[in-house]
Amino acid sequence: MLTIALPKGELLKNSIRILQDVGLDFSAFLDSSNRQLQISDSSGKAKGLLVRAQDVPVYVEYGQAQLGIVGYDVLREKKPQVAHLVDLEFGHCRMSVAVKQESAYRSVLELPPHGRVASKYVNSAREYFHGLDLPVEIVPLYGSVELGPITGMSEAIVDLVSTGRTLRENGLVEIETLYQSTARLIAHPLSYRLNADDLLGLIEKLRAIALGVPCA
Amino acid sequence: MLTIALPKGELLKNSIRILQDVGLDFSAFLDSSNRQLQISDSSGKAKGLLVRAQDVPVYVEYGQAQLGIVGYDVLREKKPQVAHLVDLEFGHCRMSVAVKQESAYRSVLELPPHGRVASKYVNSAREYFHGLDLPVEIVPLYGSVELGPITGMSEAIVDLVSTGRTLRENGLVEIETLYQSTARLIAHPLSYRLNADDLLGLIEKLRAIALGVPCA
Repeated sequence: MLTIALPKGELLKNSIRILQDVGLDFSAFLDSSNRQLQISDSSGKAKGLLVRAQDVPVYVEYGQAQLGIVGYDVLREKKPQVAHLVDLEFGHCRMSVAVKQESAYRSVLELPPHGRVASKYVNSAREYFHGLDLPVEIVPLYGSVELGPITGMSEAIVDLVSTGRTLRENGLVEIETLYQSTARLIAHPLSYRLNADDLLGLIEKLRAIALGVPCA
Repeated sequence: MLTIALPKGELLKNSIRILQDVGLDFSAFLDSSNRQLQISDSSGKAKGLLVRAQDVPVYVEYGQAQLGIVGYDVLREKKPQVAHLVDLEFGHCRMSVAVKQESAYRSVLELPPHGRVASKYVNSAREYFHGLDLPVEIVPLYGSVELGPITGMSEAIVDLVSTGRTLRENGLVEIETLYQSTARLIAHPLSYRLNADDLLGLIEKLRAIALGVPCA
């Protein structure tokens, strides 16, 4: 049976909707009383696995799930060995550099050499500044990255921005965008090549629907 | 002014209690309507910084907080450059190896060479199996590590266990303990040596109280 890894959080609702459009119903994951992390679609054709967004590519890479839905930000940060198939065109957001509104920095090139940049996306941040030839120290944080500049620990942050509300509430302002991110369909490379359980048919249906799905 | 980094989650309540015992009140962090991540103690002597448990040593290492309270598990995993001062004797738990109840493994040495172990604590897990000379592949996960053995992705997990309820609910059983963990008081090494804001006096008071604090 086909297993699909779905991401907890922001992308879950639209992930379930697009799978419903191809006849796979995992809406039980949206039930607030649900505690199950594995459920079968009512048609019995597929199983859904509800995991952390960062864990989706892990389950797909190890072949525990043949398909997965995950943000491009996670793929870019973790570089998992998965087949990257379809831009699902929802979950639009961007990876940005932000600084304190009252700071003097209005472009990344104005940041001080050997300054500090706090981020949950340490690889993306490191690559970006390396590409600019700007030596900065990346401070790895797990949450509330905006506290970096607020406490004075870092000059800037690199973080995922959707509406920008969190930044505004914390007196921060974006000065650069690293890349845009959306939800992506990924597959276990070997399952994809072997076309197990008519994976290709399902992927083509999802690809067709993705083009018509309104943005989140 | 002295800044103290406090961990969100399990250790927060007891962290606030022990600081109240030395006259520093950060109980506003426990108010469910609170959204502030920085508050000043009512006496004006200290500031509290509410951050993810894994981020506590980061703020202390960079000197943004002079003191912090964090689980030994985080210190052991991340090896931050902080002064490790007092065992606060609450938040007792253990880092354990667990397998499926119905598996044949009853000791770690029975695990298959080149088997897989899922964990959020990849460094602790790698060190442990390296010490046993048992070559295993560590699968890094961010959440719901128990899904590793349940889905068949891994033979075992290495995870923090408190009551053991999560393991039992998922049909897993502990077969080995890597180490015991409790909440620890840490300090920024330079602030500690310089004894800024009479840090040493406060640390001694906390040390004295720790010995009398009932276990969580």
